Amino acid sequence: MAKKASRPLVYVADKPDTGPAHAITQARIKAAAKRHPGIFNRVDIRYGLDPKDLSRAEIVLGVAFDPLTLKADAPNLKWIQSLNAGVEKLAPKLDRSFMLTNASGLHGPKGGEFGLTCMLVLNHAVQSFVGSQRERKWNPVFTTPIEGKTVVVAGTGGLGHAVAVQAKRHKMTVIGINTTGKKVPGFDRVVKAKDMAKVLPRADFFVVALPITKGTENLIDRTAIGHLPNHCGIVNLGRARVMDYGAMAERLRAGTLLGAVCDVFDPEPLPSGSPLWDVPNLIVSPHAGVDDGSVYVDRGLDIFADNLKRYLSGRKLKNLVNLDAGY
Amino acid sequence: MAKKASRPLVYVADKPDTGPAHAITQARIKAAAKRHPGIFNRVDIRYGLDPKDLSRAEIVLGVAFDPLTLKADAPNLKWIQSLNAGVEKLAPKLDRSFMLTNASGLHGPKGGEFGLTCMLVLNHAVQSFVGSQRERKWNPVFTTPIEGKTVVVAGTGGLGHAVAVQAKRHKMTVIGINTTGKKVPGFDRVVKAKDMAKVLPRADFFVVALPITKGTENLIDRTAIGHLPNHCGIVNLGRARVMDYGAMAERLRAGTLLGAVCDVFDPEPLPSGSPLWDVPNLIVSPHAGVDDGSVYVDRGLDIFADNLKRYLSGRKLKNLVNLDAGY
Repeated sequence: MAKKASRPLVYVADKPDTGPAHAITQARIKAAAKRHPGIFNRVDIRYGLDPKDLSRAEIVLGVAFDPLTLKADAPNLKWIQSLNAGVEKLAPKLDRSFMLTNASGLHGPKGGEFGLTCMLVLNHAVQSFVGSQRERKWNPVFTTPIEGKTVVVAGTGGLGHAVAVQAKRHKMTVIGINTTGKKVPGFDRVVKAKDMAKVLPRADFFVVALPITKGTENLIDRTAIGHLPNHCGIVNLGRARVMDYGAMAERLRAGTLLGAVCDVFDPEPLPSGSPLWDVPNLIVSPHAGVDDGSVYVDRGLDIFADNLKRYLSGRKLKNLVNLDAGY
Repeated sequence: MAKKASRPLVYVADKPDTGPAHAITQARIKAAAKRHPGIFNRVDIRYGLDPKDLSRAEIVLGVAFDPLTLKADAPNLKWIQSLNAGVEKLAPKLDRSFMLTNASGLHGPKGGEFGLTCMLVLNHAVQSFVGSQRERKWNPVFTTPIEGKTVVVAGTGGLGHAVAVQAKRHKMTVIGINTTGKKVPGFDRVVKAKDMAKVLPRADFFVVALPITKGTENLIDRTAIGHLPNHCGIVNLGRARVMDYGAMAERLRAGTLLGAVCDVFDPEPLPSGSPLWDVPNLIVSPHAGVDDGSVYVDRGLDIFADNLKRYLSGRKLKNLVNLDAGY
């Protein structure tokens, strides 16, 4: 297609080592352009990592790219669309004049199903069976259905909501935790984070779906973990640093929790020397739980297309990140 | 309560080593009598294993008890209610004058949920993660949602139906396999066992929920397993001998199947020297998948109460086993 100088330049920032599940390929952009006619042809899209293009870019689109910290690198840059939901590494380093939008909501369909999977795994003692299997031991545990049990979900955003929807399919009671205690559809009840001690003792399952921010760092601390009952199973799909894994591991080693599935660690990949690999009844999931291998980028490009339409007509963008809050 | 000679004697045959999940305790019988008033007081219930009682018994109620092979041991015996669904060890050895009823349907609520759990485990690569975890390796696999995928269920009885119901909650296509190809509610389509080669190549998941009978022994043979596509995950909740585990293990070792969760083995417990413990992407579940630890006996006693009412009024019993067919 012919380039017009008047069209805003979109710089696709993709790390060379991005896996196939996350690559913003030309084919995927073409497919997105077909799904959203009349939008992509109004911009000039440049692939690759040519610094010259970046210096002219008005918009940056990317997944897992290195922070653009200096306004000087991209003097024309106004808007960055990340295809990540968590932008904790990007947000604090950005010039405050940039608009940053994230891909919150993108993980819902897969992430909700993965959250349910983790609860069912714990409920039906898979963590116990795979532990026994390592030792060639036959240790039956006669579990009960998950229907009617209670899940407490910390975080009522896109991912937390998707977990609630899946839990409701299986007739669970779903209690949410968020900053303000504001009611959110899909949850039977929502409590303020500062009141979580009131509901944690009721958790048959405790699912963490929080971003990492100043407000959530170590929010699920030793005291909070201490409030969970002995039969509780823990699932962390959010970020590792919101939880005290040491306190969780102590309870797992003591046998005073049902088990845990953690999809997030700090750092990642989890170093081979980490003691977490061997904690009994802890399943280490390698941060693949919420990303959908087939449609991750496609869904992300749908979010981008919608925002691009808004941008070109001067309307407010969706998923705008508060750079100070970090989400 | 006063005993009347006229009341039929019910002999509760419980092995002394039956675990707490399966014990037909006096408390559980009392609770069942309350749930079903006017039935249990019309019989004389004897607990324990006194051979004198057995010799007078008209009805035997039990779970996992040794076969009563000789009519001479129980000259008055007419009806045996087993609290197992699979009665393959009992049926062939019984005098053909006995009526045998099983507990088919009892495993539905828990078994269906466990079947879904196994499919979700395989779909979201938990078998891969736990394998990598053993080696302290971080190997992300970006999976896709189970919604819209296809499960082929061999066996459309109580357990197979329950799996179909759960799969439908997640918008899967469900194809059943049974002897006659007769349509069964809950399945999108049912094919005859002899035509299964037509549908096996379409299976994203293949769930086996078959009893062991003359007709099902090695029904899922090397040829059938060969029809499954490379991305297929296998779940066996029925009986081990309906499937060629050797052929399945070969494909798992070759990496030409997604994985498998097997809840049944031959013999059980699986001997510590079995090569199956170490097959890659095979999760060994110790025959605890379909029994509900909290309500197994209670639900079984509900089946018994209904049948007892029928027996006392001379009506046909439910769940009557064809002693020659074995189910």
